[in-house]
Amino acid sequence: MKVHPDCLPCFFKQTVIALKQGTKDGRLQEKVIKGVLEEIERADLSKSPAHATTFMHRRIRQVLGRDPFKKVKSDYNRIAMKSYPRLSRFAAGSRDPLFTAARLAIAGNIIDFGIFTSIDIDATVERALQGAIACDDYADFKRAVRGARGDILYLADNAGEIVFDRILIESLGNMGRKVIVAVKGGPVLNDATLEDAASAGITEICRVVDNGSDCVGTILPMTSAGFRKVYRDAGLVISKGQGNFETLLEEKKHIFFLFQSKCEVVSRELGLPLKSMLLKRAENW
Amino acid sequence: MKVHPDCLPCFFKQTVIALKQGTKDGRLQEKVIKGVLEEIERADLSKSPAHATTFMHRRIRQVLGRDPFKKVKSDYNRIAMKSYPRLSRFAAGSRDPLFTAARLAIAGNIIDFGIFTSIDIDATVERALQGAIACDDYADFKRAVRGARGDILYLADNAGEIVFDRILIESLGNMGRKVIVAVKGGPVLNDATLEDAASAGITEICRVVDNGSDCVGTILPMTSAGFRKVYRDAGLVISKGQGNFETLLEEKKHIFFLFQSKCEVVSRELGLPLKSMLLKRAENW
Repeated sequence: MKVHPDCLPCFFKQTVIALKQGTKDGRLQEKVIKGVLEEIERADLSKSPAHATTFMHRRIRQVLGRDPFKKVKSDYNRIAMKSYPRLSRFAAGSRDPLFTAARLAIAGNIIDFGIFTSIDIDATVERALQGAIACDDYADFKRAVRGARGDILYLADNAGEIVFDRILIESLGNMGRKVIVAVKGGPVLNDATLEDAASAGITEICRVVDNGSDCVGTILPMTSAGFRKVYRDAGLVISKGQGNFETLLEEKKHIFFLFQSKCEVVSRELGLPLKSMLLKRAENW
Repeated sequence: MKVHPDCLPCFFKQTVIALKQGTKDGRLQEKVIKGVLEEIERADLSKSPAHATTFMHRRIRQVLGRDPFKKVKSDYNRIAMKSYPRLSRFAAGSRDPLFTAARLAIAGNIIDFGIFTSIDIDATVERALQGAIACDDYADFKRAVRGARGDILYLADNAGEIVFDRILIESLGNMGRKVIVAVKGGPVLNDATLEDAASAGITEICRVVDNGSDCVGTILPMTSAGFRKVYRDAGLVISKGQGNFETLLEEKKHIFFLFQSKCEVVSRELGLPLKSMLLKRAENW
């Protein structure tokens, strides 16, 4: 999936969001903007949008001298943890806990800048549980979970959202599956790192690895050799979020993508409305 | 008014609009995008957004090898001309033709990409006439029109919109005022040029000059000496559109700005909601 002209305004929206979190200093803001322009100019637009924005966010952090999303990520985790006990009980007590937990994990993918309040969570959870999933390969998913040869690699996406992931990870554990959770090797956007996995209590329930990279999504050549071994050995991959979908959709691997389509470009590519919820089997299975 | 970080996504939205009108060739689109990135990187962000986008649109036309808005402008003129007889009669027959015509001219400033159909015109005209003007210096405006020492210089904005301007220009003529209309010296965005003034029949009712420039708004140092003389000699300036407001708001000159605030940055600066309608006296009068 390559960069579409429509991605450009969005790259700069992301920059504006980072600046709002990052600094009020007008001169520093201008320096960030010039750096972003340089990075996008230099980027290979025939690669995925995630590829271009990886370099963009790296430059933003470098010019700011810090991770602008640190505070917001910790806020996300805190707010989501409030919902955890209730949602966890709800999933465990449901007729098909895997089904409910998978839907909650997709619902959790709504967690993003400016659209994360308790009200949003409740509304999205409601929507996800009503079955409004635009692409629903759940039957396949359940079969694949049961039949996977080897561990299940769970590619986490955002902080906050990772609390919802925990419910699905626990549900997989209750089915006797061994799960390895992968997080980012360094800060990028509001993506979960080891610290966030620990905040959500995930380090206590399963093995957590970092992917050795600060890339948006999972750009395999940028990840560590250690992570790539875990990926290769995994019997099944559960991939969260649009970034991971963008970067892994052409992989020849047993992957299920659980996410919400958050932009026009990806939604068009999928032939689905914006903000669709998906539980989608990889095509090059 | 300087470039705000929030302007950046908008610059690229404008680029996307130009590309949609301009070419379906992916490689040419990429060349345009790289050119735009270069221009914005090079731009002086302490100047107005109109300044940066002047160079941006120049580069877009240069890489495309043509004016991407040529067709859309002629469509705008054609659609607006259909409403002209009805609206013109309506203004002439109203209790205060200048009042009605000024409001119609502000209503016409809605004409922009993707929001220009007959339905939009009717709805906006309705809104403008209901008196929903956020900043209304009409009493001052009427006094200034009556008392202006010298010609009235009318700075046109968009194609299509210029048909609405004609109604106000005729109304000024009926009050015995001499009006000179200024259009752009070359294509830029959907801004009116001599060709559009002719399409709207304005060249037949008054003197029309071009400003010798393809700038967004009116960047005086970029305009021709001939235009600047007309500007200096004018007793009163009627300035249409946000671009002209951005570039002339600090001028020490008798100017009234008639426009709709089309972006968050300008609306915030004005302390008004987005899409506000304004008939605003210049502050450095």
